[in-house]
Amino acid sequence: MAIALVVLAAGQGTRMNSELPKVLHRLGGAPLLAHALAAGQRLDPERVVVVVGHGAAEVQRTVSRIAPEADCALQAEQLGTGHAVAQALLQMASFEGKVVVLYGDTPFIRPETLENLVECTADVVVLGFEAADPGRYGRLIVTGDRLERIVEFKDATEAERALTLCNSGVICCDASLLARLVRALGNDNAAGEYYLTDIVAAARAEGYSAAVVRCAEEETLGINTRAELARAEALFQARSRTEALENGVTMVDPATVWFALDTWVGRDVVLGPNVVFGPGVTIESGATIEAFCHLEGCHISRGATIGPFARLRPGAELAEDVHIGNFVEVKNSILGEGVKVGHLTYLGDADVGEHTNIGAGTVTCNYDGVFKHRTTIGSNVFIGSDTMLVAPVTVGDGALTGSGSTVTEDVPAGALALGRAKQVNRPGVATKLFEILRAKKAAQKKGV
Amino acid sequence: MAIALVVLAAGQGTRMNSELPKVLHRLGGAPLLAHALAAGQRLDPERVVVVVGHGAAEVQRTVSRIAPEADCALQAEQLGTGHAVAQALLQMASFEGKVVVLYGDTPFIRPETLENLVECTADVVVLGFEAADPGRYGRLIVTGDRLERIVEFKDATEAERALTLCNSGVICCDASLLARLVRALGNDNAAGEYYLTDIVAAARAEGYSAAVVRCAEEETLGINTRAELARAEALFQARSRTEALENGVTMVDPATVWFALDTWVGRDVVLGPNVVFGPGVTIESGATIEAFCHLEGCHISRGATIGPFARLRPGAELAEDVHIGNFVEVKNSILGEGVKVGHLTYLGDADVGEHTNIGAGTVTCNYDGVFKHRTTIGSNVFIGSDTMLVAPVTVGDGALTGSGSTVTEDVPAGALALGRAKQVNRPGVATKLFEILRAKKAAQKKGV
Amino acid sequence: MAIALVVLAAGQGTRMNSELPKVLHRLGGAPLLAHALAAGQRLDPERVVVVVGHGAAEVQRTVSRIAPEADCALQAEQLGTGHAVAQALLQMASFEGKVVVLYGDTPFIRPETLENLVECTADVVVLGFEAADPGRYGRLIVTGDRLERIVEFKDATEAERALTLCNSGVICCDASLLARLVRALGNDNAAGEYYLTDIVAAARAEGYSAAVVRCAEEETLGINTRAELARAEALFQARSRTEALENGVTMVDPATVWFALDTWVGRDVVLGPNVVFGPGVTIESGATIEAFCHLEGCHISRGATIGPFARLRPGAELAEDVHIGNFVEVKNSILGEGVKVGHLTYLGDADVGEHTNIGAGTVTCNYDGVFKHRTTIGSNVFIGSDTMLVAPVTVGDGALTGSGSTVTEDVPAGALALGRAKQVNRPGVATKLFEILRAKKAAQKKGV
Repeated sequence: MAIALVVLAAGQGTRMNSELPKVLHRLGGAPLLAHALAAGQRLDPERVVVVVGHGAAEVQRTVSRIAPEADCALQAEQLGTGHAVAQALLQMASFEGKVVVLYGDTPFIRPETLENLVECTADVVVLGFEAADPGRYGRLIVTGDRLERIVEFKDATEAERALTLCNSGVICCDASLLARLVRALGNDNAAGEYYLTDIVAAARAEGYSAAVVRCAEEETLGINTRAELARAEALFQARSRTEALENGVTMVDPATVWFALDTWVGRDVVLGPNVVFGPGVTIESGATIEAFCHLEGCHISRGATIGPFARLRPGAELAEDVHIGNFVEVKNSILGEGVKVGHLTYLGDADVGEHTNIGAGTVTCNYDGVFKHRTTIGSNVFIGSDTMLVAPVTVGDGALTGSGSTVTEDVPAGALALGRAKQVNRPGVATKLFEILRAKKAAQKKGV
Repeated sequence: MAIALVVLAAGQGTRMNSELPKVLHRLGGAPLLAHALAAGQRLDPERVVVVVGHGAAEVQRTVSRIAPEADCALQAEQLGTGHAVAQALLQMASFEGKVVVLYGDTPFIRPETLENLVECTADVVVLGFEAADPGRYGRLIVTGDRLERIVEFKDATEAERALTLCNSGVICCDASLLARLVRALGNDNAAGEYYLTDIVAAARAEGYSAAVVRCAEEETLGINTRAELARAEALFQARSRTEALENGVTMVDPATVWFALDTWVGRDVVLGPNVVFGPGVTIESGATIEAFCHLEGCHISRGATIGPFARLRPGAELAEDVHIGNFVEVKNSILGEGVKVGHLTYLGDADVGEHTNIGAGTVTCNYDGVFKHRTTIGSNVFIGSDTMLVAPVTVGDGALTGSGSTVTEDVPAGALALGRAKQVNRPGVATKLFEILRAKKAAQKKGV
Repeated sequence: MAIALVVLAAGQGTRMNSELPKVLHRLGGAPLLAHALAAGQRLDPERVVVVVGHGAAEVQRTVSRIAPEADCALQAEQLGTGHAVAQALLQMASFEGKVVVLYGDTPFIRPETLENLVECTADVVVLGFEAADPGRYGRLIVTGDRLERIVEFKDATEAERALTLCNSGVICCDASLLARLVRALGNDNAAGEYYLTDIVAAARAEGYSAAVVRCAEEETLGINTRAELARAEALFQARSRTEALENGVTMVDPATVWFALDTWVGRDVVLGPNVVFGPGVTIESGATIEAFCHLEGCHISRGATIGPFARLRPGAELAEDVHIGNFVEVKNSILGEGVKVGHLTYLGDADVGEHTNIGAGTVTCNYDGVFKHRTTIGSNVFIGSDTMLVAPVTVGDGALTGSGSTVTEDVPAGALALGRAKQVNRPGVATKLFEILRAKKAAQKKGV
């Protein structure tokens, strides 16, 4: 059975108090939108349509980055969820199969739940949940799993309000039936909006079957304010931390490790307090990440030790047993087995061979103000402290650069490169100089 | 109606277990004392008198720094709150109006509460609160808002102890009446102290009216131990974080952002985990502060991106779209629009023009051991990596400094400054050197 | 009365999901095993035997490091606690006195509890605790403190299951009696294991007395999963933080200070948010540690100010009033009174005299690729920014090094050392260079 995904992402999110469209606010380092999309993509959908509206251009750019296979449908005016789905269906007139409607601001829905949804054989399937505090949610009136109807809170009797099975808004329906039903929707209500939910009554009236699939309340958590976003982030992190502990990751203080949606950490990896993961990090078993590390878009191999105070940026690929020490930044660089970069170094756009040692204060000068260039360092090289490697430049295997050297030309294998002035000591000059400076200061004070 | 503020700050705070006077311990980056003072100053008082005693000199220095308009009155012996107020009144004999008595160790009182206090027309106004657990607090016996009397816990009947309206100690009273009442106070009690609270009974006995103004219990929270201080800090931070979220600030993990009393953060500013604000920080809308940043006394403009691992110190003024990267410190420096300082740099006492790029490892050598000097860098300058700028020095617009250069003289606009030795490669020398060193090591091992 | 300690540390800890033996996972920076050992050592034991099994070699190495006086007994097959104790007793056949059996994965037992245990005069003493939720623990059937018997949960009657006094497994018994009892143990049970607990019934059957000593449930907390380890770490940290507050330490946010088992922090020390202590740190009264500091194996004296973003590694000894600023690493170095190291510096294997100032970007080049060498800097020295000190090297008192110098030879006292090229300005070259680069870029873009 072919599946199509429709993700509603057109809302303004006024209560976020933000210029940024709500679905682009970040959760676990990824746009809110990416979470429901990722869950939906586990259904292996034939089509994905994201309905955009508020901040359409910006949302569309994000969609094409995180889900290039998806199309966007513009909902120019926000006339309700039914109207939004109608816009999406216009883009997929030829599609035959089931349509699943998700929400860009509801990030916690589980792939397993969506599988239950599409496997249900009823004509219209609604995702419901038992609410701890049902409040003003719409109530689902059911007989077993059969959905009789949905009652809005304001229309509900006392007895109906006492029910706790609530409507999540997520729906699954055959494409052509759905298209016909949303076209027929009216907007004769207080808000003047077309409500997707109303298709259930319409379907039932025509004799179609409707059913409820249940999920945990948490999965239906929507985000409307920054405080809710902060709580959602806390929930996302709590889940990620529990999962990591179960997978055999050691964390000194799990509450101070921040995971991204796609972080992958192997067994027996040790994470100190205060480790921040941006997107795209993979760490093999048995690596150690000390406190105060910031990692993004990088791969760390078995036996590597990182930090404290290290930053790995996108494109940092570290082979086994690499050591990255404090106040070190690595970007877009490939480091061979056993490479050591102990202190105060910037490695950008570099290839470093096995067992090479990079001294403190080393910089790959990769930018000339207009272009970026690459630095190539061989194996078993010893880069002396405070070496400036002015790229493009190559240092051969087993070479050595003297501390404080600026290396502008290639260094042959086994060679010593020096680019520094000879030391001169001027006896007594420091003493004299400080005498003069202190006398000046004393005079100044007197003057005041 | 003229207002005078009296802040009691003479106590020793024995239970703090500290050399530092209690009111100088910090909350939200400011001395405890500063909080009640700040609330009181919102009344626009004509006079402010702080009563000092324990650690008087140190407290006085702090007062003159944070509230230069305030006077200090010395309470040489700590003979009770009534005695303390008497010392303050001696300093303001000529003042006519209302006196509000606050406490230096009670930081959470709200300006709105104080406004209610001074607007109340009774002769003596006492601030009361409904205590969740009234314990041994003095109870306020009232008829409506009229205060009949204050009963100390030890003197209270069962019925009175069942009351939950408690005395905060904060009082407002006409200056001349207050002066007369405190002069008449006795110290015939177990502690031998003069209690300010006793003026209520005295006033009522003379036929003056007394009233209660109510506030939330939280506002009356006093601090006596370090554990209480830690809890107060947690409360202060929780409030600051909630307020920031409501104002449209994005925080990945609000629990790891520490605000100061005067932090100002604009809408849509993104704060990563672990951002520490010292006093005096303002951030315009739409700036991004990455994880692990430490900011104090600085201004960050719209569109700027800071960190991770950045430190901005007092006097750092960043124009729009400035980028400060990792392991960068900026102090007392003005950075023009679009300036980029990506890595491992110290900028101190510098002026940097628009769109200038500062290479990794750059240092403004601003200190000669006795004096500090200024560095001036023009617009569109490219400072090569590891450039030492020995101040005082000026680099003109559009100039370029070579990586690894020490710049001791001014660089004209458009010029290239080089201050480094030419590179020399000595073929085979590295190979030979390592052979010798390894042979030596092998010999040593054999020797052992 | 002579005491011997037996610590059981042979278990695999399967549920940890780890290659590392369970007792080597860290708590408060020390192996789990070290905690029970440290508590036991407060009894001043004559003998200490650790029973090792799973990962024996690795555990043994750790034992010899953290408790050199201890012996290890190998339990090749894990046949139960009784069998484990038997292996330990084989190693101490000649010992006369009381044996206390502890568990390597039960870190919270207090020395005071163990003292109560050994002071109890019964022949067999069992440590019991009142369980909030006794679950499947063995129940202790007592008359007062007299222990009648231990009933396993599965054998217990309803009435016995209602009892809440539970068996911790910790036992104290005369060595020769214990040896006889464990030899006689059977393994006729579902698991086919020899249970230490069974000695109580055997002793009672022979007419020996048995007693219970009670402790808090928390002290008996064992660790079986990573989630339990994380909770234990949280508990350890909570205790350490409370203790520090009570001792007069100021912490802005105690929840973000991580103590090690042996951290010692004096009164009125101020700790900012995010301070990580590795093992072996002592800080004298009145020092200040700013946010984002990582300290291990170092001593910080009165009046010193550290950080933010500082890392002190083993062997860093800081005298009074030393200042260590941001992005500074100090390792195996002794810093005299008033030394200032403000920014971006690596000091390794160095001795620095009083009141010396180390400029930004300084590096002690202590490693030549094979050997480490020492740097010696005198008093009142001014090391200019970006000075490379190529060790072994000595800088005399009152000397000065020019910014950007590489110092390879000793500098006499009072001398100025320069090792840098003279600056040359090439007028117009920067302008021309950027014109060429930009033209090239424009051409590239056109080409595409």
